[in-house]
Amino acid sequence: MAVFSRDFRIKTETDGMFDITEYVADIVSESKLKDGIAVVFCPGSTGAISTVEFEPGLLKDVPRALEKIAPAGVDYEHHKTWHDDNGRSHVKSTLIGPSLTVPFRSKKLVLGTWQQIVFMEFDTSQRERNVVVQVLGD
Amino acid sequence: MAVFSRDFRIKTETDGMFDITEYVADIVSESKLKDGIAVVFCPGSTGAISTVEFEPGLLKDVPRALEKIAPAGVDYEHHKTWHDDNGRSHVKSTLIGPSLTVPFRSKKLVLGTWQQIVFMEFDTSQRERNVVVQVLGD
Amino acid sequence: MAVFSRDFRIKTETDGMFDITEYVADIVSESKLKDGIAVVFCPGSTGAISTVEFEPGLLKDVPRALEKIAPAGVDYEHHKTWHDDNGRSHVKSTLIGPSLTVPFRSKKLVLGTWQQIVFMEFDTSQRERNVVVQVLGD
Repeated sequence: MAVFSRDFRIKTETDGMFDITEYVADIVSESKLKDGIAVVFCPGSTGAISTVEFEPGLLKDVPRALEKIAPAGVDYEHHKTWHDDNGRSHVKSTLIGPSLTVPFRSKKLVLGTWQQIVFMEFDTSQRERNVVVQVLGD
Repeated sequence: MAVFSRDFRIKTETDGMFDITEYVADIVSESKLKDGIAVVFCPGSTGAISTVEFEPGLLKDVPRALEKIAPAGVDYEHHKTWHDDNGRSHVKSTLIGPSLTVPFRSKKLVLGTWQQIVFMEFDTSQRERNVVVQVLGD
Repeated sequence: MAVFSRDFRIKTETDGMFDITEYVADIVSESKLKDGIAVVFCPGSTGAISTVEFEPGLLKDVPRALEKIAPAGVDYEHHKTWHDDNGRSHVKSTLIGPSLTVPFRSKKLVLGTWQQIVFMEFDTSQRERNVVVQVLGD
């Protein structure tokens, strides 16, 4: 049993979802571990990690649904603290969560055929994001 | 430290929540491991894993709350891609997430007395689902 | 590779978010493990674990957003089962989820600068909560 730790960087845009499956699969492969788990983590409070069928329609549908819960253009108490504009970004990140754990077997992530791992950018400006992958296994 | 990997299959229905606690507990037991974690994973983009107090009232309350975020009967961009009708199913799955990690001690999951592990089916037809459990521990 | 298991207790209030980062960091430190993951788990069906930038504004913004999904003052089927009043608490807990997994490297959690681990109390009365931390690593 071993721990294998890597980062990767991606460029993101507001309310975008970014397919990071290949980054995670490559790190599992590089780890040489056969069976275990890959923990994918966003070290930041305005992004999140989940899975989705990565096709253009859902890249609009998911942000639209989240907009209902934490809309733009309304007052957030967060803005009073920092005089910024990304209260909704923080709310969405807390709801989705920064962490995803995916099992792998025989060096292969057990994702469904139409299921991709995504980084969800909620911040109000373009970002370059660092994503952490911690692999544990045999 | 070892990794122990198993699947199980369940039959599901639209917007149903299915108590899978016993499946997960049995796999932990079968692993012979004493202390560790059980990762429960849905390999698919229209289901999710969480916990709930498994009683008939909440089996209606939780789907009703999710219906507000991703209602039936409205247009989803996803439908234009595939000409299907399950855009809302995908949105709910991404929000809840496909993965849950539960610690165990002395071979017993550390769940609360009124807390069960559930598979949440969001797809618009009956399904037979495969659920993956990855156990890591000593 | 080893498993290290600890609990801690906190006093909570309805719709409060409680910064538990130091508890988790101390347990990782006590484990003497260098690299691995900390699984933070709420054994109960009316609380949840996530991360947030822990500042006074968001402590209001996040509960307000969740109130839209599962408002107070409406009927929940859950109340018919138990004749209590915390249907909304259960719904919010299932949405956020009871589990968070945070990687650590060189004994340090890989959190962002403005990112804290929080226990989210959704129950309708003050509680004393037990939180479980399972550390796996080398």
